[in-house]
Order: sequence, then structure tokens, then C-alpha cells
Amino acid sequence: MTSKAKRVNKALDETVQLRHPAKIHEAMRYSLLAGGKRVRPVLCIASCELVGGDESSAMPVACALEMIHTMSLVHDDLPCMDNDDFRRGKPTNHKVFGEDTAILAGDALLSLAFEHVAAKSTEISPDRVVRAIAELGSAVGSEGLVAGEIMDIDSEGKDVSLNELENIHLHKTAKLLEAAVVCGVIIGGGNMIEVERVRKYARCIGLLFQVVDDILDVTKSSKELGKTAGKDLVSDKATYPKLMGIENARKFACDLLAQATEELAYFEVARAAPLYHLAYYIASRQH
Amino acid sequence: MTSKAKRVNKALDETVQLRHPAKIHEAMRYSLLAGGKRVRPVLCIASCELVGGDESSAMPVACALEMIHTMSLVHDDLPCMDNDDFRRGKPTNHKVFGEDTAILAGDALLSLAFEHVAAKSTEISPDRVVRAIAELGSAVGSEGLVAGEIMDIDSEGKDVSLNELENIHLHKTAKLLEAAVVCGVIIGGGNMIEVERVRKYARCIGLLFQVVDDILDVTKSSKELGKTAGKDLVSDKATYPKLMGIENARKFACDLLAQATEELAYFEVARAAPLYHLAYYIASRQH
Repeated sequence: MTSKAKRVNKALDETVQLRHPAKIHEAMRYSLLAGGKRVRPVLCIASCELVGGDESSAMPVACALEMIHTMSLVHDDLPCMDNDDFRRGKPTNHKVFGEDTAILAGDALLSLAFEHVAAKSTEISPDRVVRAIAELGSAVGSEGLVAGEIMDIDSEGKDVSLNELENIHLHKTAKLLEAAVVCGVIIGGGNMIEVERVRKYARCIGLLFQVVDDILDVTKSSKELGKTAGKDLVSDKATYPKLMGIENARKFACDLLAQATEELAYFEVARAAPLYHLAYYIASRQH
Repeated sequence: MTSKAKRVNKALDETVQLRHPAKIHEAMRYSLLAGGKRVRPVLCIASCELVGGDESSAMPVACALEMIHTMSLVHDDLPCMDNDDFRRGKPTNHKVFGEDTAILAGDALLSLAFEHVAAKSTEISPDRVVRAIAELGSAVGSEGLVAGEIMDIDSEGKDVSLNELENIHLHKTAKLLEAAVVCGVIIGGGNMIEVERVRKYARCIGLLFQVVDDILDVTKSSKELGKTAGKDLVSDKATYPKLMGIENARKFACDLLAQATEELAYFEVARAAPLYHLAYYIASRQH
């Protein structure tokens, strides 16, 4: 998996080069190439290979997913949103480049994501490319990431039920993971049953990702996380440990892992191995 | 032309409906349906018809252009950018919904633009749809609208040459008009020569649009414009009247109009009539 992430990094580095106007490309590169686990791109490539496609076919969509993810982080960190000063152990984008440039860098990354898929998926049948773009778009907009963010903002300081919390995270985290696997399977030539299996898998690991994130926020230090710890408690945000207790949150994580791997049983074991590993990796990560 | 704009409004109204979560869709609709001349959608449809395509084929891209344009207005109006309180005679998006929601509404409109083209251009050959999406994306990102905005911000308070000013406006205004006509011609099945003709036409009317805007800013009142007048002077922005004087700016506008209409001479007169009219409309608009 590490070698896949490295090739994703190389592709991202080549895609967003330092050209004129320098400032906007510096700001885009600053956040896009700041490290991170490249979970979404790797997931997309693994899903493409799951149904017999190859890595190079999935690479443009894989890069697009990381651009979209980075955009959402840059905008979420802004003073009028989560007001975060650090991200992945470095000052946030607006702290370095200013708020105006941070907003524009996010906009540019978002539009580049779609442009990149359309312009660089030259070996793929155009009808698959169009389907992948529609899936990507639905993961971002007012019924995807943005919906999750708005529901999250609205929930602050209010009593939130477990159902509402799940709905927030299904939009805020799971939707883009869903787009990653679904686009991978579409580009790889998978059928509708395969699409639906990986979609369910992604929903499970999306929630899993968030439950683990919530648990880490209350159990780890800022240094270990590479970002401000305990923020959820301070801002009075609804989290799984808060709503169900830390032990039940851990048990919920185990259940989600089991459900996710169950969806993978439909596929050939050898091909599904990276997706099994990714689910276990998300479940056991420490920062 | 008015009937075309009305049908665009109807299509936009149907595309962005008031669904859950309500706040984000209200914010999107507030700015998207706030009136405006629908120059880009009408231009896109007219360009599609110019090469024998029909209005319904071009409508998804036409709507996408207005979503992108609206996103750029909502983000440009933010306090950390142009800090505008009024737009089209109404309070700006962040004044009504808050900065966080305004940023998210822009993000949602931007991603919806691409999703909408991909999901709704079902009657069009997918390779044309993919080409149109690539063209749209390049008009927004770090070599399009965003590049223009960054160069514009960097130029404030500095001495800007006429060449630099032209480069700003080619990105900030002309790129999206270019995408409008090029996408229209692509969707309508036009050839490369036709694409290049309309591209040059769009660059001319893009600059024309901006020259006229600059002239109106120094010659009209806020009430007549429906937005704050004299802002360019107050913020010490480079404008055509400032760099070449108001009379030379008017002459430059006439030259651009002549160049734009010259590009149209390549096409059948009857089919090109809406594009002629649009150029004259831009040249003679009073607000």
C-alpha cells in the first residue's frame, strides 16, 4: 500500500506544478503535498484492481479524490469554520497564505479535480469517465461533503442523537470514500452488483474512520495526532465517545470492521486483500 | 434572448431545489436565482445553435456556467476578498447566511456544476461531454477565474501596466465566457475551426465586458448599478479608465466590439445573430 501512496504523491506533484501565478500554485501544493495517508486515492486504485482494472487507469480519479479531500480540509480549517491553526503538524493553509488565497486554492483544487479526470482519463471509455465524474460531484456537493459540514456546524452546542451523528458522518466522511471505491470500480469496468458491494463497504469504513478519529481525539495528545487534540470536547461537538461512552464506541468500531469485511467476501480473496488491509489499518490507526 | 434567459432561470430553479439540509440549498438558491443577465448560459446556448445543435442539449452546460459564475461572485464578495455588502441590489450571501455557509454554498455550486453536466447530458455523446467538462474546469481553476482573482488581489495598490490589466481580465472575465461558447460549440458538434473562432470572439467580448464595467463604475451611481459604485477608485484598483482615460477606454470598447463581430463573419448570418446582439448588448449596457 505504501508504494501505491508514493505513486499517488508523484502523480499529484506532477499534476499541480509551480507555474504562474506562483502564489496560488504554492498554496495548492502546500496542502496537497503535505503528506497524509492518501486513503482515498489508494482505495480508488485498489477498487479498480478489485474488478480487473489497472492502477494507471484509476490514477486521474485517485488524484482528483485527494484534491477534493484537500479542498475540504483547507476550507474547513478557515477562521469562520473550524478555525484550526495546525493540520498534519504544519500551520494551516490560511495561516501561511492568508484567508483569501486559502479560499481560492480550495476552489482551484476542486475544479482541477474534475478537469483532471476529464482531461487525463484518455484510455478510458468516455461513458465510464462521465459516470465517475457524476459520482465524484455528488460526493462533494449539497448532498455530500458540504451537507455533512453544514449539519455538523448546525449541530454544535445542540443535543444530537446517534442517528443524526451517523448522518453527519455518512456525508462528511463516508461519501468521499464511497466515491473512491465506486469510481474505482466504474473505471475498472465493474458491474452494478460490484458497485453496490463496495459502496456498502465504504459506508462502513467511513463511519469506522470517524469513530476512530473521535476516540483518538479524547485519548491522544496534540503531538501524537499532529493536530490540536481535545478540540471536539472544547467546542462541545457531538462525538461517538460522548454519545455512547468510550467502550461502546470501541465496540461499534469492531462491528463496523466486521460489516465492511463481510461485503468483501463477494470478491476474489487475493484481489480484495488491499481493501481488507485498509479496513484493518483504519480500525487500528493511532494518529 | 429574454426567452432563453427565462428558460435558463426555470432550469436552474428546478436543478437546485429546496431539499435537506435546507440552509445550504437556501443559500445556493439565494445567489443563483438572484436575477442577473444570464450572459454565459445564453451565450452557450446560442453557440450550440450556431453550429446546428439545439437548446436542450446545451442546457446542462448552460446551467453549470451560471453555477460557476455565481460561486465566483459569492466567494469574491467575502470579507477577506472584496468585502462587498451588496450584489445585484441585494445583501451579499455571507451577509444573509454567514461566512461559513457562503463558502460552503460556493463549494456546493462549483461541484454541482460538473456533476450536473455529467449526470444530465444524457442525449450527448459522452466524448463531447468529457471535452466540455475539461474546458469548464480549465476556465475556473488556477489558470482561469482563480488565476485572475489572485492576480487582481496582488495588483491592488500597485502600478499595473495595460498588459497586466488585460491578462487579469482575460482570466477573471473572459475565460468563463470562452468556456461558454467553446462548450456550446462542442456540445453542438462544431469543428476545431469553429471552436477557435468563437474562442476569439469570447476573448473580445470578455475584455469588452470588463471595459464597460470599469466605465460604468466611474460614471454611474450605486442605485443605477444595483451594487456599490466607485469601489474601484476607493480601493485603488487598476481600471481601463484609470490607465488610459475615459475617452480612450470608450474607443477601446468600440475596437473590441468590431473585432468580436469580425470573428462571427465566418458563420451563417442568421445563426450568428444572437451572438452579434449579445456583443452589442454588452457594449451598450447601462448597469
